Amino acid sequence: MNQHLKECFDSCRPQVDAYLKQLLFADAAGRRFAWPLDEAMHYSVDAAGKRLRPLLTIMAYRLCAQDWQRALPVAAAYELVHTYSLIHDDLPAMDDDDLRRGEPTNHKVFGDAMAILAGDALLTEAFRLLAEEVDASSAVVVKLIATLAQVAGRDGMVGGQAIDILSQGQADGRDREFLSELLETLHKRKTGAMITGALLAGVDLAGGDSDLRLRIEKFGMFIGLAFQVADDILDEVGDQDILGKDIGSDRELDKLTFVSLFGLDEARRKLFNLHREALLQIEPLGAKGAELKALADYIVERDR
Amino acid sequence: MNQHLKECFDSCRPQVDAYLKQLLFADAAGRRFAWPLDEAMHYSVDAAGKRLRPLLTIMAYRLCAQDWQRALPVAAAYELVHTYSLIHDDLPAMDDDDLRRGEPTNHKVFGDAMAILAGDALLTEAFRLLAEEVDASSAVVVKLIATLAQVAGRDGMVGGQAIDILSQGQADGRDREFLSELLETLHKRKTGAMITGALLAGVDLAGGDSDLRLRIEKFGMFIGLAFQVADDILDEVGDQDILGKDIGSDRELDKLTFVSLFGLDEARRKLFNLHREALLQIEPLGAKGAELKALADYIVERDR
Repeated sequence: MNQHLKECFDSCRPQVDAYLKQLLFADAAGRRFAWPLDEAMHYSVDAAGKRLRPLLTIMAYRLCAQDWQRALPVAAAYELVHTYSLIHDDLPAMDDDDLRRGEPTNHKVFGDAMAILAGDALLTEAFRLLAEEVDASSAVVVKLIATLAQVAGRDGMVGGQAIDILSQGQADGRDREFLSELLETLHKRKTGAMITGALLAGVDLAGGDSDLRLRIEKFGMFIGLAFQVADDILDEVGDQDILGKDIGSDRELDKLTFVSLFGLDEARRKLFNLHREALLQIEPLGAKGAELKALADYIVERDR
Repeated sequence: MNQHLKECFDSCRPQVDAYLKQLLFADAAGRRFAWPLDEAMHYSVDAAGKRLRPLLTIMAYRLCAQDWQRALPVAAAYELVHTYSLIHDDLPAMDDDDLRRGEPTNHKVFGDAMAILAGDALLTEAFRLLAEEVDASSAVVVKLIATLAQVAGRDGMVGGQAIDILSQGQADGRDREFLSELLETLHKRKTGAMITGALLAGVDLAGGDSDLRLRIEKFGMFIGLAFQVADDILDEVGDQDILGKDIGSDRELDKLTFVSLFGLDEARRKLFNLHREALLQIEPLGAKGAELKALADYIVERDR
């Protein structure tokens, strides 16, 4: 991670963490009878995540405005949705993962029922945050909510996860063109949509114009795809201590990945091209785009 | 069901059903790779539900305005959230029900993974509906979204379901006062909150004043609790053909219910009192409150 990006992470992350922490305190009646639900919600939100999506919102906001603390509720909403998706994805009925970031997954600690409900509650809380805690006009708030619902739902992240699950073990007998399109649709929705949404939320909150919005949307789709290609490569060649999850777990499940379909070399070439396309989109922003450029570099080279 | 209510159901329900049907058509790319997700969403939304929550929204809207078709997207949002909650509640990790309204539950048909995702997608779609499809000012839309998030989330329906799960088999050794408070909190959140929210959404969309809003909120809490007490009674004494689910399933799970805690007679007395309190709230509305009165009567006497 380069110095510029490290400073950005270091300056924003404590405030994102602090904002998330004060968010999830339950009322007295709730704590009395349902504290395990609160514990389960806290557990995964507090886990040592990178806070990548909040950072994307803040970086995009700073393209147009300075007072980035105003973006915290929006940034937090994206982190809550991301967190809920990890909890549900790890469930035995889905990817059945025991470890996440080196710690036991939510359902391993709180049981499947509480994990499902904690996810449901976090998703709902994200929309409450946008509706109640954002300092912006109602028109902007509605736009933020519409975008989150689009990128998180059936045509975005949830749809991508469905394709991921449905495609497992279905690669045999399909031609490469079909599988390539399937894989790209899967990744664009499962990861790319939320990354793009987090960026667009920052632009929309700061009142960016439509040209900037379009550039940032394309940038988001390219780095979103890059993020997932890098993930596939890491899963193949990574080190368990770095990843904090079981190595080769994708392959064991006979999962369709960029590496399994194209091989390691071509996957790396794709990653390189996606990186280049992403940078082209933000080139006209000049020095203002330095944070986003550093982030695109980091996604390609990250150690997670 | 009396004639007045029957006419109301008969005149509204086909339009609610038609609105829900046209909602969930996926884009082409989505259908190509993830049609089982769409199928799973359709399956539970199309199931022969009563559309009680949409009807509540429409009835409350009609207290202040005539053009009730304007309330359809809001009514549909509440039905989507209700449907997602049924899908998740039926999962093996939760209540583990095989039948719902006489048909196999979602996960029995589509598997646990698709059922979890279909629920997630329906919840997200409800917020998209409110943000994108409601013909109202942004300020009203934000209010509708805030209310839905409150009544559906941790302090509402999801919190109630968590208490329900956590309280199973935990009644031994607790005093009656504690259990009574727990039970009331559970029911207020699990069922009452969404019923109240559906009513308030109608009032808010139609621009009802704060006095009406308060009355309708109290009315909602009373009939919400009544609904659940009636549910407990039906589960104890009902007929499987009517309920469409396994009789005595609550008792088998050693679930805390109004009947298990207070006995059948006192549960019936509570139902009577809640009904009376609900009617008191809408008495000042005079003839305009006739639909809501018929509904309160139906909830107490319903055959589901």
